[in-house]
Amino acid sequence: MTIRPYIGIIGASTISEDIEQLAFAVGEEIGMRNGILICGGLGGVMEAACRGAKSVGGTTVGILPGFRREEANPYVDIAITTGLLEMRNLIIVRTSDVLIAIAKGYGTLSEIGFALKLEKPVVGLKSFDDELPLIKAKSPKEAVIKAWELIENKDT
Amino acid sequence: MTIRPYIGIIGASTISEDIEQLAFAVGEEIGMRNGILICGGLGGVMEAACRGAKSVGGTTVGILPGFRREEANPYVDIAITTGLLEMRNLIIVRTSDVLIAIAKGYGTLSEIGFALKLEKPVVGLKSFDDELPLIKAKSPKEAVIKAWELIENKDT
Amino acid sequence: MTIRPYIGIIGASTISEDIEQLAFAVGEEIGMRNGILICGGLGGVMEAACRGAKSVGGTTVGILPGFRREEANPYVDIAITTGLLEMRNLIIVRTSDVLIAIAKGYGTLSEIGFALKLEKPVVGLKSFDDELPLIKAKSPKEAVIKAWELIENKDT
Amino acid sequence: MTIRPYIGIIGASTISEDIEQLAFAVGEEIGMRNGILICGGLGGVMEAACRGAKSVGGTTVGILPGFRREEANPYVDIAITTGLLEMRNLIIVRTSDVLIAIAKGYGTLSEIGFALKLEKPVVGLKSFDDELPLIKAKSPKEAVIKAWELIENKDT
Repeated sequence: MTIRPYIGIIGASTISEDIEQLAFAVGEEIGMRNGILICGGLGGVMEAACRGAKSVGGTTVGILPGFRREEANPYVDIAITTGLLEMRNLIIVRTSDVLIAIAKGYGTLSEIGFALKLEKPVVGLKSFDDELPLIKAKSPKEAVIKAWELIENKDT
Repeated sequence: MTIRPYIGIIGASTISEDIEQLAFAVGEEIGMRNGILICGGLGGVMEAACRGAKSVGGTTVGILPGFRREEANPYVDIAITTGLLEMRNLIIVRTSDVLIAIAKGYGTLSEIGFALKLEKPVVGLKSFDDELPLIKAKSPKEAVIKAWELIENKDT
Repeated sequence: MTIRPYIGIIGASTISEDIEQLAFAVGEEIGMRNGILICGGLGGVMEAACRGAKSVGGTTVGILPGFRREEANPYVDIAITTGLLEMRNLIIVRTSDVLIAIAKGYGTLSEIGFALKLEKPVVGLKSFDDELPLIKAKSPKEAVIKAWELIENKDT
Repeated sequence: MTIRPYIGIIGASTISEDIEQLAFAVGEEIGMRNGILICGGLGGVMEAACRGAKSVGGTTVGILPGFRREEANPYVDIAITTGLLEMRNLIIVRTSDVLIAIAKGYGTLSEIGFALKLEKPVVGLKSFDDELPLIKAKSPKEAVIKAWELIENKDT
């Protein structure tokens, strides 16, 4: 079995078109490298990233806040209905090998806080790079390349 | 998109060979019908059912109690590391359309209690059929057929 | 500091008058012994037990399923709004030294399952005494005396 | 019944002596105003604040990450053993009417993120006041006065 990394994508559900394109490209890069994309399963950054991953045949998992599978965006392969509301953010962090934070939002901030606390690496793309110790990336491709490097370094 | 049902398998991690064979056969039936098998991701009933599902190319999800993906049995496709310990049982119940309880155990009992409380149907195979209002099945095939019927009836 | 035991009361929110009187008497006995009464904070068994405890100046804690403190019954001193819904049952089990199950309900059943799984003793009063390994009590006073004995035995 | 506000204190478990004095003074102010002090129940900021509250006869609640009541600092009146690990931070946020963040830490950051997401006001004392929209306070007394004002304004 080849080990597939779990890449968590964190970002808001309401975003600009620019951010949507970034998230799509990040998802696409993850899908092409055969990573498993973990996210909150809703719209915005989550939907764009899932759509990107599915556009190249990737695998997507949505850790939903609520109880209804229908809340997942249509690009989620496996929907986990946690009923934990925003507490589900922590399951995203715990399940992922590395996280990529896209843009800024308070939910994203809470996930970054938990990830840093758990010493999981977080790559930031237009996120809280200046305020917090994220690994800064300048493009979707760079973000995903850095994510893979972080996983490989952890294993060795 | 054809909708794939989510079938939760609940049962203990330490089991007899007889129960193992039952759980394998249940997993096989789920896999053949293209259901998504949801379980706690560990050994015993969970491992046997996942192994059955993978033997026919099915999809398996393990909702793990701990933090380490390595705790999952080798037949889990997608491992969610919840860190919720036995509280993760509820996420299994919430994520599944219908549950199949195999044999008797206290963890299984707690999941049955929650499922009944949430009005999710539970099919029982050598489980607490006499004490509690489970839908009794006499064979793995009957259990899975009843599970599918319950989902179809719910939708109409 | 004298150590105060934490006694979890589990039981349904809709109950008959008979059960209500039992629950009140259990709460009263706990309050008189200076135990901390832990419960789900809502109506029925929970409210009657809290009312009993407060009638003799006891301390009551409600571990609520939702987000609003107003959901607590008026006899709750400290209300924890978990937002975990029925998953909060586990926090009641984890926080209590011993549990007293009053009458039968599926939520109660799930709590008993978890308690047995975690090897916490459960005293049953008109509950699932016949089906499950609860410590059977015939009166509120006997239930509370047995609860105290179980805690003392654990410590030695 | 006079309504007692629930004030959440968030801050790290390893702190300098300066911060400890601040936290003690905040706890003292809360206790004097008869607020219920909610915190994570461990050391550092949490212990100092509880000690302050108890020094004036206040009430303290520790929402612990683990399973053992003994992990609570000795100034906790009511210890809730959630077993949720750092996920318990959210229960602190959900249970509190207003939060006071003392100093900077990643756990504190995650709690601030969640509080802002849930639109709960956060008063900051030597915390992330510059980076995030906290209500800045310059002294323990000012922090507590602002906390009370925020609750009163919410009610009207």
